[in-house]
Order: sequence, then C-alpha cells, then structure tokens
Amino acid sequence: MTAPLPNFDRKPLPTGFLDEVRAVVGDRLGTGEAIRLQHGSSETHFDPVLPDAVAFVRSTEEVAALVRLCVAAEVPIIAFGAGTSLEGNVTPVKGGLTIDLSEMNAILEVNQEDFDCTVQAGVRREQLNEHLRDQGLFFPIDPGANATIGGMASTRASGTNAVRYGTMREAILSLRVVTPDGKVIRTARRARKSAAGYDLTRLMIGAEGTLGIITEITLRLHGIPEAISSAVCSFETLKGAVDTVVQSIQIGVPVARIEILDDAQVRACNAYSKLDYPEKTTLLFEFHGSERYVEEQVETVREIAGYNGGGEFLWSNLPEERNRLWKARHEAYYAAVNQRPGAVGWTTDVCVPISRLAECIVETKEDLATSSVPSTILGHVGDGNFHVIFAIDPKRPEEMIEVEALNDRIVARALAMDGTCTGEHGIGLGKQQFLVDELGDAVEMMRLIKRAIDPKDLFNPGKIFQL
Amino acid sequence: MTAPLPNFDRKPLPTGFLDEVRAVVGDRLGTGEAIRLQHGSSETHFDPVLPDAVAFVRSTEEVAALVRLCVAAEVPIIAFGAGTSLEGNVTPVKGGLTIDLSEMNAILEVNQEDFDCTVQAGVRREQLNEHLRDQGLFFPIDPGANATIGGMASTRASGTNAVRYGTMREAILSLRVVTPDGKVIRTARRARKSAAGYDLTRLMIGAEGTLGIITEITLRLHGIPEAISSAVCSFETLKGAVDTVVQSIQIGVPVARIEILDDAQVRACNAYSKLDYPEKTTLLFEFHGSERYVEEQVETVREIAGYNGGGEFLWSNLPEERNRLWKARHEAYYAAVNQRPGAVGWTTDVCVPISRLAECIVETKEDLATSSVPSTILGHVGDGNFHVIFAIDPKRPEEMIEVEALNDRIVARALAMDGTCTGEHGIGLGKQQFLVDELGDAVEMMRLIKRAIDPKDLFNPGKIFQL
Repeated sequence: MTAPLPNFDRKPLPTGFLDEVRAVVGDRLGTGEAIRLQHGSSETHFDPVLPDAVAFVRSTEEVAALVRLCVAAEVPIIAFGAGTSLEGNVTPVKGGLTIDLSEMNAILEVNQEDFDCTVQAGVRREQLNEHLRDQGLFFPIDPGANATIGGMASTRASGTNAVRYGTMREAILSLRVVTPDGKVIRTARRARKSAAGYDLTRLMIGAEGTLGIITEITLRLHGIPEAISSAVCSFETLKGAVDTVVQSIQIGVPVARIEILDDAQVRACNAYSKLDYPEKTTLLFEFHGSERYVEEQVETVREIAGYNGGGEFLWSNLPEERNRLWKARHEAYYAAVNQRPGAVGWTTDVCVPISRLAECIVETKEDLATSSVPSTILGHVGDGNFHVIFAIDPKRPEEMIEVEALNDRIVARALAMDGTCTGEHGIGLGKQQFLVDELGDAVEMMRLIKRAIDPKDLFNPGKIFQL
Repeated sequence: MTAPLPNFDRKPLPTGFLDEVRAVVGDRLGTGEAIRLQHGSSETHFDPVLPDAVAFVRSTEEVAALVRLCVAAEVPIIAFGAGTSLEGNVTPVKGGLTIDLSEMNAILEVNQEDFDCTVQAGVRREQLNEHLRDQGLFFPIDPGANATIGGMASTRASGTNAVRYGTMREAILSLRVVTPDGKVIRTARRARKSAAGYDLTRLMIGAEGTLGIITEITLRLHGIPEAISSAVCSFETLKGAVDTVVQSIQIGVPVARIEILDDAQVRACNAYSKLDYPEKTTLLFEFHGSERYVEEQVETVREIAGYNGGGEFLWSNLPEERNRLWKARHEAYYAAVNQRPGAVGWTTDVCVPISRLAECIVETKEDLATSSVPSTILGHVGDGNFHVIFAIDPKRPEEMIEVEALNDRIVARALAMDGTCTGEHGIGLGKQQFLVDELGDAVEMMRLIKRAIDPKDLFNPGKIFQL
C-alpha cells in the first residue's frame, strides 16, 4: 500500500535569511513564482510544492556557505540538478532553499590513462560524453533522461547500459560532499579500490540528498569499443522475448544493452518518434567489443532469439541507425504519456531476480489488461528491471486511485519474488511504505544514520522516510 | 606515521556472564588459554591479545542472543572467521567475547539461473568453489588465503581476480546482519540492483565487524568460462613489467588476473613452492572467455609484453599447470616470510591510480634497497594494488622500527599519488593514522555513524579508529 503522505510542517523563512543567502550568491537567487514552480514540479504525478527560494550556485564553497546558513537558521535545503527524477525526489515538501547545481557544470579533469574523470555535480551525461568522445572514452550510465551526474549519483541511477557496465554504484570512484556540519569532505581517493574505512561513497550514492550535498564526482570511464552493433527483434509473445534475454545473459554474452518494449510501448514510440517497427513485443540490443567478438555475440543472440519465436533479427553497425534507435528509447516515457493528450505520467520501477522476470512481466501485463488506464511496459531486462508507464487523465481522479492499486500490486509481486520496489528511480516520496515492506528493520538503521548525520532533518527532508 | 596504539581499558567479565553465554551455546564455549591465544593472535606482526572467551556459534539466532547478552553486560564482541586478516583486524584489544563463526559453514542455496548463492558467514571460499564447480559456476574473489566469506566481506577483500570481476563490494548482493540492538536485518533483496534507500550492504562491507555481525551473505557468481589460459613472463626491468600491465588494461584486454612478483619474491616462491622460474620480475596472467576470445587476448598481451622487454611468454591451458602457478602465488606470503628462518611477517598494501603504478613500485623498490630487512614486492597490479612483505627478525627490535619507517614512506608515496593506504587489507589496528591522512574530515562522518549504530563501542572496538 502507498501510505498517504503526511502533512509537512512548513515554517516561514527567518527574517533576514535571504539577505544572508544573497551575500553568498549575489543575484543568483530566485524568489519569483515561475522559478520556484519549476523547482517544485515533477515530471510525473506528484503535485508541485514550491521552495521558498532557489539559489544557483557555482562552487563547492558557495554550497558550503549556504549549508552553514541553512543549518544555523534551521531552513530545509534541497539539492536540485536537472529535475528529471520520477518519485518526487526533489520536491521541497517543507519549503526551504533549493540549491540548483546546474551552473556547476565544469568537467574538472579527465585522466585518460586511468579511465577516470572528475566533474562538477551539474554536468549532464550527454555533455560529458561529447567531451570525452575525442579521447576515445565514454561514460556508460544512461538512465534515458539527460540528467546531471550529481542527480544520477543521488538516486543511484542506472539505465540501459547497466547490464554490462553496472550502475552509479559501480561507476563512482569518489565524491566531494558538503556535509550537514558545513565541512567539505572527499569520500575516497582516485584508486580503483580501497579497504580504507566505511564506504561513505556508496552511502552517499542513492541517499537522495538526505545526508549532504554532492558537489563533485570522480567517475570510472570506459574505452569506446572498437565495434558497436545494435539490433532490433520482434517477438510473438512476451515470454519469448524475456526468455531470449534470460538465456543470453545466462550463456554469458556480455550484451551492452538489452531493452524490452511491449506492443503498447512500440505503438507509442512509432507515433512519437516516427518509426515503423512491428507493433509487437520488441527487444533492442547493443553489442560492444572487438569486430570479431561483436560478430560472435550477435550470432549467439540471433540464434537464441530464433529459438524463442523472434522474427527478423535486424542488426546494424551504422551509427545513425543506432542513434535513431536509442533516441526513440530515450523518448519512450514521453511517447507513452503523450499517447493520451493532456495526460499525466506515472512510472513505476521494479527489479527481480532474472529467473522470475518472465513470470513477473507476464503477470503484470495481465493485470494491466484489467484497467482502463493506458499503460506500457518497458525496461532494462538484462538486470531484471522493468517499468510500467501510465498515462492518467488528470480530470478523472478515480484513475489515480486505480493506478495506485495497480502500482501496489506490481511492487508486491516483485517483493514476493525477492525483488526490490525500485531498481533505479529511488524511494523519494512515492515508495516509502514499500521500502519498509522490502527491508523491515533495516530501515531503522537508515534512520539512525540519518539522525546522526543530519540531526535537524534539514537535508531534503521527507524523502526516503519520515524521521 | 604509524601512531603508537593507545592502551585499551580492559574490564573483567561481569559475574555470571559466561553462564549466560553457556545457556546459548552449551559446551561450544572455549575459555582455555590455547583457544584464546589462537583467537587473539595474528598472522603478521601484531602482538597477541587474548579474548576472555570464545563462543562457537551455529546460527544467526545464537549470534543475536549473544549480541544481546554482550550489549546488556557491556562486554566487547568480536566476530572471527578464519583469522587470516593482516592488519590485526580481529585482535580483541579490550578483551571480551570472540564469536567464532567457522561452524556456520552451510551453503544455504545456489540459484543457478540467477548466478547467485547464499552462504553462512563461516563458509570458506575454496569450499564454496568446490561446491559450485559441478554447476558450472564460480565465485571469483580470491584474496589468496582460504578466508571465510564473512571475513572477506568485513575487510572488503579482493585479490587476484578483482581486475576483471571486482571486489567484495561488487560481489555481494545482500547481507544478513545482527545489529548492535540485537535485531536481525537483511540489507537488500536478491535483485541485481536496487535504488531502495541507503546502501547498508556496502556500509557493512569493509566495516570490519564494527557495526554489527554478518551471518549470511548473498553473492553474485559467474559462469566458469569456456576457456581459461594462464601465462608467465619474466622481464628485464620492473618498469617493463608494470608497463605491460598498464598497456594491456588501457587497450581493453579483459584480463582475469595479472599479478606481479619482483625478483626477490620469485626467488622466495621458487624455494618454497619448488619452482624454477627465472629470478626476475615476473608477471602471472589468466585469461577467461570463449576459445577464440582467449586466443585473441593472449596474442594481444604477448605482443605488448614483447614490446616491453618481456622474455618467453609461457602460456598453458592445462588445469594442472594453472593450479601449480596459482598455488605458488597463494603461498607467496609464507614463502616471503620463510626465506628467513624464525622471521615475523609484516605485509603492507597500497593502491594507486594505474598511471602512477610504475613510478610508485620503482621508487618503493629503490627505497627497500636501502634496508637490511629482507622484503619482496608482489601485487594485483591490474588494479594498481601492490604489497610489500617484510621478513623481520623478532630478536632485533630495531628492524621493527625500520620497517615502520619504510611502511610510512610507502603509504605516504601512495597517498601523494592520490592512492589509498589499503587496497584490500583494511585499516584494522595498523593503519588508523593513515586513514586520517587519506580522508581527513571524512573520518569524522565514519565516527558519527559508528556512534549512532554502536553507541557503547562494543563491536570490535579499537578498530578502524578510536572513538
């Protein structure tokens, strides 16, 4: 069950507080309704809640100065990147000061020999990859949206390449963080591994800004593979598609991407991105490696797909074909929501052990068929992770209730299969009861940590859990 | 500088405490000097400190019961696996109750389709791999010693396969932990990835038993590769060997193992393990993949080695050759210490960005040449991680002082290169000042977490830092 969110206390800003903020950031302080609405809105179904003000910061020192002001004045402080989160993760439920890091968008260093780089938190992933391309390197984590690296760290994002390259958990070597006591710490050195003390890097990844504000990130990079091929294949049945994924993973093919789109999602993508794929369950693949090794992978997967009722295995090593394919995949959320004019989107996100994936998706699809609300299924199935996107008519509140019940069942089904209530979107506002359903008493340990590090509950309050 | 360890308070056990422990574990309670000495000794240079008693547990419930007793009576509690740690990580500096988990050695489930398994904390890695072999699976993390999985989790172990398969940080999906408040929590579900709340799994990995006691571990497994080849190659210069490693990694060869042994270490291994390798800097390799792909990898690395002054590239796909090679590598520590009869071993462990590795090892080797204490260099150079092993004459206390100074310089050199003071051995008793040198104020955040979770400082007290 999604618990109804409690009413949050909202205190007015103390007198003179904004003057103190202005002394740090000058005129980079927004207090107008438009800017506050932009920073209080969500791309999904959460009602907007406006911060009292928005400060556009340009350095770690400015963040630290604002943190000290907020803590002294007991003003909530919310870090904001690109605003592309999906569970209300940056909604300032108690008001306060939103710190917009989008102007901290410098790529500070690239260490080509070490396959790493250090960036400010406001750098966007597409910007980073454009910067890296000439050096033969790339940053693989791709959640779809052109999110900031800081936001991706804070929600433990993953996306289409995670099956091969891991998630933000694996991609980050070190973080610079402004802690609630106003200090600036670095959580680790640039070495590939370390056994030096508690893993503060991993603690901050996925903490959704509740334990401090990430201002710089040192990332692992990868060499652009010698060869890249993409492929598309339609299936008669959902199970045939999922079995193809599971068998490819199990046989050890190091597929870089395997994405599933159900028939409804393909229909939405065809309309939105002007494509003409057969409107059936479809898998999108990408293979990375040496020329010879990519060929070997394509052959193996083509054979597995054929065995599972896959249609023509359309593969290509042309960059323009590949870009068209992944552009459509990245637009899938908007495609799904836009299939219904004026609709509000709600996307959920679960992840199960891969042996349970076919069963989980098939049962979910059957459940969705009982509802009148349009929905699509898509996901990063190589990890066992999939999403359902609902397009809700905002004039029909009964649809919101119906989707809530469907979402409850989707999560309950995943948990019953020893899965998680969120593979990559985070807990935010939307999944707090599910977190307790999933981890029980472990959530109490999270609260202990939160209280120890942020005793006044000022950092993105009301997210992950209520204190 | 290694700070001298403070004197730890040691309180006698409260009256009747051992009777309460006996009510939980029956006669699986050791209070004799021999058993206490065994659990208070180290394989390296740390003086033994005896626990007051040793309880041999058989279930998570027993651990939880003992935790509740210890917390109520304020008795220190130290989890013990195989006792193979190298930084005094399980020395019971304040006495108390050592919980020996070696009888919790059941492999609870193997999910072949999901490439995962769940084991009790006392399972040893060799036992696990023997169990898995028939199912075509293996667990790659190999720190050399036949450690327990619980101990490996607690020190964030890695070892020879980490360059390809990651460390315990990446290998663990979920943990069962008895927390200091006597509850049993599971830190995550069995899904491959999750964005559900704080990453307690990673917080416990590497916490050295200071935040609770790990009793069960769910591990990621890998398919035994179709083909495995090993290779040995000697080099005229240390730099030629290291450059071979760096260039192989940079060109993207997914080598499973690349180990370096300096001339002194090869000499020691030849004597101890009855081998006859040329007594020069030597690289040991292992390659995993399809037949065709392994051939491709071997060819690429052979060429790189030749270019860097490598001698004959002896490779083999015979299991017996391979086993002989890795057995010798696993015995390297004992070989190095035993080259001097009656010597005490001290091994240090640093990890630097790979671009600095050649420089770091070459400078270290020059520094070692100024000392009369015999030493060897070896390491997991694909990660930038290497060790120095000293064989100290215990009758010459001036040697201990000399090694301490050498160790200080080795760590300082690594830190100056943005490396870490420990790649895989942990902080334990030996590296507490280095942790502060490395991470500064971040250590304060670690203390906050420790105090919140273990407010009475009873769980492996005195390790990682002094509260």
